[in-house]
Amino acid sequence: MRILVANVNTTQSMTDSIAEAARAAASEGTEIVGITPRFGAASCEGNFESYLAAVAVMDAITRYEGDFDAVIQAGYGEHGREGLQELLDVPVVDITEAAASTAMFLGHKYSVVTTLDRTVPLIEDRLKLAGLDARCASVRASGLGVLELETDPERAVKEIVAQAESAVGDNRAEVIVLGCGGMSGLDAQIRERCGVPVVDGVAAAVAVAEGLVRLGLSTSKVRTYAAPRPKKVIGWPLAS
Amino acid sequence: MRILVANVNTTQSMTDSIAEAARAAASEGTEIVGITPRFGAASCEGNFESYLAAVAVMDAITRYEGDFDAVIQAGYGEHGREGLQELLDVPVVDITEAAASTAMFLGHKYSVVTTLDRTVPLIEDRLKLAGLDARCASVRASGLGVLELETDPERAVKEIVAQAESAVGDNRAEVIVLGCGGMSGLDAQIRERCGVPVVDGVAAAVAVAEGLVRLGLSTSKVRTYAAPRPKKVIGWPLAS
Amino acid sequence: MRILVANVNTTQSMTDSIAEAARAAASEGTEIVGITPRFGAASCEGNFESYLAAVAVMDAITRYEGDFDAVIQAGYGEHGREGLQELLDVPVVDITEAAASTAMFLGHKYSVVTTLDRTVPLIEDRLKLAGLDARCASVRASGLGVLELETDPERAVKEIVAQAESAVGDNRAEVIVLGCGGMSGLDAQIRERCGVPVVDGVAAAVAVAEGLVRLGLSTSKVRTYAAPRPKKVIGWPLAS
Amino acid sequence: MRILVANVNTTQSMTDSIAEAARAAASEGTEIVGITPRFGAASCEGNFESYLAAVAVMDAITRYEGDFDAVIQAGYGEHGREGLQELLDVPVVDITEAAASTAMFLGHKYSVVTTLDRTVPLIEDRLKLAGLDARCASVRASGLGVLELETDPERAVKEIVAQAESAVGDNRAEVIVLGCGGMSGLDAQIRERCGVPVVDGVAAAVAVAEGLVRLGLSTSKVRTYAAPRPKKVIGWPLAS
Amino acid sequence: MRILVANVNTTQSMTDSIAEAARAAASEGTEIVGITPRFGAASCEGNFESYLAAVAVMDAITRYEGDFDAVIQAGYGEHGREGLQELLDVPVVDITEAAASTAMFLGHKYSVVTTLDRTVPLIEDRLKLAGLDARCASVRASGLGVLELETDPERAVKEIVAQAESAVGDNRAEVIVLGCGGMSGLDAQIRERCGVPVVDGVAAAVAVAEGLVRLGLSTSKVRTYAAPRPKKVIGWPLAS
Amino acid sequence: MRILVANVNTTQSMTDSIAEAARAAASEGTEIVGITPRFGAASCEGNFESYLAAVAVMDAITRYEGDFDAVIQAGYGEHGREGLQELLDVPVVDITEAAASTAMFLGHKYSVVTTLDRTVPLIEDRLKLAGLDARCASVRASGLGVLELETDPERAVKEIVAQAESAVGDNRAEVIVLGCGGMSGLDAQIRERCGVPVVDGVAAAVAVAEGLVRLGLSTSKVRTYAAPRPKKVIGWPLAS
Repeated sequence: MRILVANVNTTQSMTDSIAEAARAAASEGTEIVGITPRFGAASCEGNFESYLAAVAVMDAITRYEGDFDAVIQAGYGEHGREGLQELLDVPVVDITEAAASTAMFLGHKYSVVTTLDRTVPLIEDRLKLAGLDARCASVRASGLGVLELETDPERAVKEIVAQAESAVGDNRAEVIVLGCGGMSGLDAQIRERCGVPVVDGVAAAVAVAEGLVRLGLSTSKVRTYAAPRPKKVIGWPLAS
Repeated sequence: MRILVANVNTTQSMTDSIAEAARAAASEGTEIVGITPRFGAASCEGNFESYLAAVAVMDAITRYEGDFDAVIQAGYGEHGREGLQELLDVPVVDITEAAASTAMFLGHKYSVVTTLDRTVPLIEDRLKLAGLDARCASVRASGLGVLELETDPERAVKEIVAQAESAVGDNRAEVIVLGCGGMSGLDAQIRERCGVPVVDGVAAAVAVAEGLVRLGLSTSKVRTYAAPRPKKVIGWPLAS
Repeated sequence: MRILVANVNTTQSMTDSIAEAARAAASEGTEIVGITPRFGAASCEGNFESYLAAVAVMDAITRYEGDFDAVIQAGYGEHGREGLQELLDVPVVDITEAAASTAMFLGHKYSVVTTLDRTVPLIEDRLKLAGLDARCASVRASGLGVLELETDPERAVKEIVAQAESAVGDNRAEVIVLGCGGMSGLDAQIRERCGVPVVDGVAAAVAVAEGLVRLGLSTSKVRTYAAPRPKKVIGWPLAS
Repeated sequence: MRILVANVNTTQSMTDSIAEAARAAASEGTEIVGITPRFGAASCEGNFESYLAAVAVMDAITRYEGDFDAVIQAGYGEHGREGLQELLDVPVVDITEAAASTAMFLGHKYSVVTTLDRTVPLIEDRLKLAGLDARCASVRASGLGVLELETDPERAVKEIVAQAESAVGDNRAEVIVLGCGGMSGLDAQIRERCGVPVVDGVAAAVAVAEGLVRLGLSTSKVRTYAAPRPKKVIGWPLAS
Repeated sequence: MRILVANVNTTQSMTDSIAEAARAAASEGTEIVGITPRFGAASCEGNFESYLAAVAVMDAITRYEGDFDAVIQAGYGEHGREGLQELLDVPVVDITEAAASTAMFLGHKYSVVTTLDRTVPLIEDRLKLAGLDARCASVRASGLGVLELETDPERAVKEIVAQAESAVGDNRAEVIVLGCGGMSGLDAQIRERCGVPVVDGVAAAVAVAEGLVRLGLSTSKVRTYAAPRPKKVIGWPLAS
Repeated sequence: MRILVANVNTTQSMTDSIAEAARAAASEGTEIVGITPRFGAASCEGNFESYLAAVAVMDAITRYEGDFDAVIQAGYGEHGREGLQELLDVPVVDITEAAASTAMFLGHKYSVVTTLDRTVPLIEDRLKLAGLDARCASVRASGLGVLELETDPERAVKEIVAQAESAVGDNRAEVIVLGCGGMSGLDAQIRERCGVPVVDGVAAAVAVAEGLVRLGLSTSKVRTYAAPRPKKVIGWPLAS
């Protein structure tokens, strides 16, 4: 099967590392295709950027020429998943939800460790809407911007571990979720240092997407995610 | 003061009727400017269209030349308000929230009557995120599409009244909220037939926006709605 | 329009300062009339005093000779608003709810800073009943009694600022609500020191009440707030 | 031990039947004293009447000459319990809460059957504040006013049974709570006809109060229910 | 009346002290019979042990020869109450629920102080299912294992008091619940040192059970707790 | 990898059909081993039977000789998963949770269709504890007992379809979950007739378990699911 993994920002190196993490998690026979939007911010750290990404990802997926069996939206806490579900017949998996859902099989409560303080409410909102917040002990910020994860991975691990330890000790989390697509690949190191399961959203989403495809399940089209009604839409598809 | 009232779809006649409703609700001295997005769907009835609108409204507001004191996003149950809050220093008022908030001063529970069945979950989600759902008795669909409200206002009133009566009788609502920007102006007729207060979101938003401006209050910039961090954004501002 | 602003305690100087704050917030053409109950406690800092105030405010409003367009109950976290809604046909606005509702337009979460530790649960209960608690980050006590706000305003500001800063830093509030009618007028100073929007309940209630009156909206009479059924009531109206 | 059972309305015959129901439930050695307020409505069916009752019950209990070990507030869904808790050192038991709490030991969900439609929201609010609403399947109105329960007990039983059966069948209740002090004594008949446990609030409150007294437990005085602070209170105690 | 008080572990001395605490709380004329399971763990401090206890208690109660009027399950936060309710026609009272329910009559919020950190989530889960968690301020661990309570009661009191004080000061609890059957008898000492009401679950359950029996109330049999359907069950009753 | 799929009842034919459904869902290279408890009820339709099953499944899994990579507990709405998590180091997946979690990727709300009315509350409780209830539209009973599913599959499909249609139409579900291990294999027929995705818990659990194993994730051992403390346990392991 082929899974498209859509980065939400326009930084190609981040698409590459996300795709690499997805490939590491995929079963034999699963092809991973990394997708980079044509427009948008170099990193998504707020609502303006995230809304832009929502449209940019819809644009990029619509524009993809070729078949695919599932789509992963690889931004943590971002807008847009519902739009893709309307446009596509294949399953759409958001890493925010895949990670939370996976963490809930592993411990009584989980915490998310993300990048900046300002993105915490976005993640909280996404988990609340998804109905996956009841067992979320906390969403904590490491203080690193998205792009700093790439430029200074050592510091990233250190800061994430510090937050993870507070989450386990102070917030009673038993599982840690990495709250940024750009943290993919750091899970093993953090797990080792913290002694609790660490869930990487991209890897979790690959497992969920593969499972849905194997079970022949996809988005319900009876109401919320029915295809858009035929109507005049100015400026879509976006000009090349 | 000057308030920009942004339609979320590209139908100019709807912008006009929304602006008219806003003017009818405004205090003396308040100037209402209707804004129509440059791109997007003729009506917003789902997530794809709503995400497109979120960006189109940000584009239209950013592009507006002139001063203004507040912005009203005049789509009921739509995405995008958070992005505007990041981009602007003046208050941003979403009609979904203004209407709910207003209804809560008038009765123990309120219900929303909207257009299509498929938009009900979007509205429920927006109210949940806004933390204004605890006293929402129900969100009910009249079965009319957004544009049918304009083309067949008589039927619109009839269907909305039918749903409103069920909301009061079966769901124990005491106040009705009109759940579509395109329903602006129908409130008086519906109130008369149902015997309960009827809140039009556009009018409610004007009152809220005027109040905030008079009190000198605007969006907090300490965390969630801080201005976007300086960074490379491809394709923004959107090309003319 | 004329708005009655009812103090909940019997301290005339507090009625005066509340009325002054209301006037400062009112639009041109709005007349503010301060109302002091004929009986009750010099300050409301608990349930016994608050229940007494509920009846005393109903007495004072009923006894008011003259027309009016709306009533503001100017006690933060107090009982009684529902009774007034039954007795009156004009809108009744409680400052607890007006302030919370207003704060929710300004930031992702808000905190209330009130007077004594013992009044915190009363406020929490009022917000819970009003369905306005989902985005309340915390209710915090400054440790000052209601009357100390008047006698030592400098210390009041200092203690409120300290709690506001903890609310923003520790509880992730983005907006501060002043949780006592007696704090009216301190908002500008606190806003300046804290860097976040500060909502004074009396001012917020004036804006809400003016908006409702302008929109022609008032309390729904179909169920909860219908006028009391005709029946024998001993001792009401209260003897002069 | 001696337990004061306070009626919330001024109808002496209702005080008598409440006291009788309390005596029937009491253990040997428990003395029940019925208390009728000096002022207030002939029946409590709304917020205005209930707030008046809150003060009238505080007045009546304060005025009681003699020792007592506990107080029961025998109005279902009424205001006032918190004020009594501040004024007294002995346990105060509200029948709304005692009944709900008792019902929760008997089945997975319970429903309340009360008098008028308009009192339903008051009861819902009291249960929500008490944190006893999570297992409440519904609050349903029989359509009878409080005083009709006395004048037409046969019809009362019939209407209550009809609502109880709907509660069990449609709302999945497994236990019925009688939602009015005036329904005391009807529980046996209703239980027999419905085949589910029926909880009378007055009886339940007697059992709870006796239990608290025997265990030597009373209201915590560390915060919410501490005695009122010493201060000037005009008009209290109320003139004889 | 006769009440069976079932210990959940196989430590006879703990059964004895639980029965003693029950007797101290019982009314004149109530006979308390302590029950020790035939199998299971020496102490219950986790789910494996608790599930074993659920079956062992059902076995022990089923095997009891003689009449009884109520059963108390004397394990705090343990599984099994629902099974007993299906098997028996008399009331079944779990000490977790009895204590929480009792505490809610005494203060605005309560906290539970239990044994080990690992049992905290079990208690939280039981309170959540029981719908008694809304006013629970916290569940805190003293760090002592169940059996240490017996072997080192002095240290137990000291550690419990320390947690109780944090609960009152930091979590805003106004009442403390002793979260282990083995803490029975320590309540007076802790109450004295903390200045807040302290609820022992075994004593509370005795009062609740006596009340239910006196009121002639028992488990509803219409749905959840109906007797098991007749069917083949291998290995039950368990071999002697 | 090898996955043990534990039936919760003692009916071997049901174990066989569950194992068959698991095999149909499994990836190449996954071995499914069906496990039948040595004791317990022929079907689990209540708490007594479910608690017995909890211990019987722990017994059967502990007794299994051979390696395995994950365990699936194949009873819908049953007790016991937490005990297995303590006893094992490999992932434990409950079909109740796997199905709900999977359904949430497919639509805005899901409903569960189960067997008997009396098992509905058990399932509601399990979903509530799992924190997966926020998007559950309803749990509905088909009226068929567990064993009737096998003896009369045609009627089973008909009754399940009827409930599924009500769930979609009346409760606004967009996805149906089959709420009984014994319904495995009926999903395709029901999906075809209802036009919405239908999730079989056993199949979903296989996908989840495979995913966890592939990602190298297992139960957190830091608190709730740590191995039982070493202590005397009478009667365990159970005698052969």
